[in-house]
Parts: sequence; C-alpha cells; structure tokens
Amino acid sequence: MKIVFIGAGNLAFGLSKKINNLEGFEIIQVISRSENSAKELSDILNCRYSINIDDVLDADLYFIAVNDDAIKKVAGHIMLKNKFVVHTSGSVDISVLSENTKKFGVFYLLQSFKKYSDIDFDEIPVIVEASDDECLKKLKTLAGKISKSVYNYNSNQRFTIHLSAVFANNFTNHLIYIAQKILTDNHISPEIIIPLVVKTAEKISSDKAEECQTGPAKRNDLETINRHIEYLKSKYDLYPELYKFISNSIIDTYKKV
Amino acid sequence: MKIVFIGAGNLAFGLSKKINNLEGFEIIQVISRSENSAKELSDILNCRYSINIDDVLDADLYFIAVNDDAIKKVAGHIMLKNKFVVHTSGSVDISVLSENTKKFGVFYLLQSFKKYSDIDFDEIPVIVEASDDECLKKLKTLAGKISKSVYNYNSNQRFTIHLSAVFANNFTNHLIYIAQKILTDNHISPEIIIPLVVKTAEKISSDKAEECQTGPAKRNDLETINRHIEYLKSKYDLYPELYKFISNSIIDTYKKV
Repeated sequence: MKIVFIGAGNLAFGLSKKINNLEGFEIIQVISRSENSAKELSDILNCRYSINIDDVLDADLYFIAVNDDAIKKVAGHIMLKNKFVVHTSGSVDISVLSENTKKFGVFYLLQSFKKYSDIDFDEIPVIVEASDDECLKKLKTLAGKISKSVYNYNSNQRFTIHLSAVFANNFTNHLIYIAQKILTDNHISPEIIIPLVVKTAEKISSDKAEECQTGPAKRNDLETINRHIEYLKSKYDLYPELYKFISNSIIDTYKKV
Repeated sequence: MKIVFIGAGNLAFGLSKKINNLEGFEIIQVISRSENSAKELSDILNCRYSINIDDVLDADLYFIAVNDDAIKKVAGHIMLKNKFVVHTSGSVDISVLSENTKKFGVFYLLQSFKKYSDIDFDEIPVIVEASDDECLKKLKTLAGKISKSVYNYNSNQRFTIHLSAVFANNFTNHLIYIAQKILTDNHISPEIIIPLVVKTAEKISSDKAEECQTGPAKRNDLETINRHIEYLKSKYDLYPELYKFISNSIIDTYKKV
C-alpha cells in the first residue's frame, strides 16, 4: 500500500515512521509547506518530498495531517479528487472530506506526540471512521498493525473523546505546572511532586477516578480550603479562582452522590 | 523504639504497618475513637488498642495521625505531657504541638493512602520537621528506613507542598473524573483515556510540565475551544466555566512566556 503524508508536524513524524516500518506499507512522499520539515521527514522515511501539493504522487492512501482548519482546503484540492483520503484530527467531522471523493476516513490517535519521542504505539487507542465498509476495513487493518486498541466511533463520539482528552491531558498537565510553580516559588524542588503524579495515574488504571478522589474539597474541609485560597490570593492572580472553581466542582460532585 | 499510633485512618494503616516491620521499631498500641478501626489495626500489628487516650502506654514516640482539626487537642492531652509527639499532616503548623512538650515534630508523607493498598514506600517523599536537632535526627533516621526521599522543610514550606499536592493529585483526579464522565455519557468506555493519563504522568518525570503543554488553549485555537464550550454548555452545569477558567489560565501562562 503506497501512502502519501500531507503535513510534517509532530503527529506526522511519529505516525509515518511507524507505518513505514510495517510490512506491505510504504510512505512514498511527504508534502509540507515547510521545506525544512518536509525534507527532514522524507530523509527519515527515505522517500520524496515537495512543498507543493500540485506535485503529489499517485498513491493508495493520503494522510492529511495538517492543522484542523486547513484539512477541508487540502482535501478539496484537485489532485486529491477521487482519492482515498483520511485526516488525523480528534475534533474535525469526517464530512469535511466528502466533497472531492467518495473514499475517505479518519485515523485519530488518542495521544499527544512530540517530533522525536520514542513512542510505544501498542497501547495507544486508534479511533477510525470511514465513508464505507471497504474503507473502514482498510483503516482497521492498518490500525490493527499499529496498536492493540482499535475503535470505530463516529465523528460526534470522536469529538467527545477529544474533549475528554483535553481534560485528561492538557488540563491535568497545566495543574501539574501550577503545582510545580508553587513549589519552585518556595525554593522546593519541583521533582518532589512526581511520585504523587505517577501514583495518581496508576490508580486510575485500577480504580475509577470517582473512587480515587481525596483531599480537602472531597472532605468538605472548608478551613483548609480557605487557608489555601488565602495563600494563593497573596501570591497569584488567576489561581485563587481556579482553586475555588475546581474545589466547588468536587464538592458539588460528591454532594450529589 | 516503642511507638504508639493515635488515629487509625488510611495513613495510620499504611504507615504503622511499614514501621512495625522495621528492625528496632515496634508499634505497641493503637488508640482510636473508632473501636472497629482500633481493633482492626491492632490485630494487624499484633499490639494492644484502646478507644480512650487515658489508657495510652508509655512509649518513645507518639504518632498523632488524626484529622487536622483534632491534632492540637490530642497533643495537649495530659497523658502526652513531655512526650515525643509528631503529627502527620501536610498543612498543620508544627507549633500546635508545642504547648505540652518540648520534643515534637512532623512526619508528612507526600502520597494519598488507602487502607489496604500495597504501598511501595521507597519513592514516597517524607518531609520531616522537628523542635530540635536531636528530634530531627531521630525522625530523619526513621524516615530514611522508610524511603529514599527524605526532606527537612519548615511548616510554611510543607504547607505549600501540601497545596501543590492538591493541584497535582486531588484536582487532576477530578479532571480525569470529568473526562471519564464525558466518555460514559457518550457510551464510550472510560478506559480509552487511561493510556493518555499514564503517558501524561510519565512525561512529567522527564520533562517540565511547562514543556509538555499541548492542546487548543496552548495553541490559542479559539474555534476548537468555543466548540468544546458550546458542547459542555448543552450538557453540564459547572464544566463549561471550569473549561473556560483552565483554558484562560493556560492561554495566560504561555502568553507571558
């Protein structure tokens, strides 16, 4: 199966390298507006590259791994007419691919990527969706060679999976950032908090988050909550309100149960 | 070293079992207002128990592992006069122990405990503080037999460590709860998010949280942010505001950098 990658960002780097190593699959070209990125990735994949989509080669499958708001435009390009195209976005509806072709799909990896990180794809959930059964089967086959966890969900469900990933990854990462900022502002090593962060994630693997909840808000310990808020007010602009908001949400959650 | 545990909650269960297994240390008694808990823990430790602090035995060290607001009262009990007492709280000042004795300290484990979980203490940071060098040395020795990570920080620093733990554990756990609620509300297995949660924590171990930040708020991708908020508004009361607040904090953080 000959594949072209359009886009050479973090996800394209990770995913294309993985696919190129699979038997029966070959990345034949990388297209990116950034010549540096296109060349860098094509060197790794040992394939051709171009900065111009007009140069796109004939292939069995086209990965559109570009920014969300550029997907529709790329998919509508004349050179991709009647081709098998898939995008890799968590939140963009599959229908944006439908104007130019009848064979299309989505190939969404539930993980955040960095350009050069070593990735163990085995455990990464791959969520696929397609225009028809034949395309779906092809995407499932490819996904199954990459990961043990392959799911077929529609665009609305994928949107909510992406939203939940924002809470579970982007937002938790920011809270850990705040935790480490509070520590370094008090001349305490930010690493002191790492074992707790790792343990928090480990617990989720065996118990539901609801059952793992502890802390002042869970106990409705208003004295400690107020001391925390007073301290945050004395040092930070946004964090006192953030603390209140999340604490209130916790109090509200466990009051109802 | 003969030790009495006052309190038989989650922390007392975990810590007392660990200490009782150390050579040269023996828990001789558990005191708790709850007879069930006192008996349960004393059975495990193979020691005496009482529900009345008037029965407390003579010992070299007394652990006060009770609720924050009860520590001062327990420490002031006539039977503990001039004894070596320590509390285990993250946020209570060491000075609450000073009225009844000159030998006192704090022994705070930066981890959340469950009564019967198997705990690997090796990596858990232990933060100690004491009234004087001799008491500090004793607590450091004990802490060093429990964990590789022993720190001496004062009460103000320990307060901020506890506050940072609220962000890094309690709050992140709640966000994961929300993520899993969004999934189950859409008939998607909540387990789909677990690999991402584990990866988020793993990344923190090698990179600073600031460098790991990704997502719509980091990219200032207002279109996706607004679609997320509209969706949350259609389903939930508190979560749209929570989403906005954390996103604004992320936008604010990376605008300044």
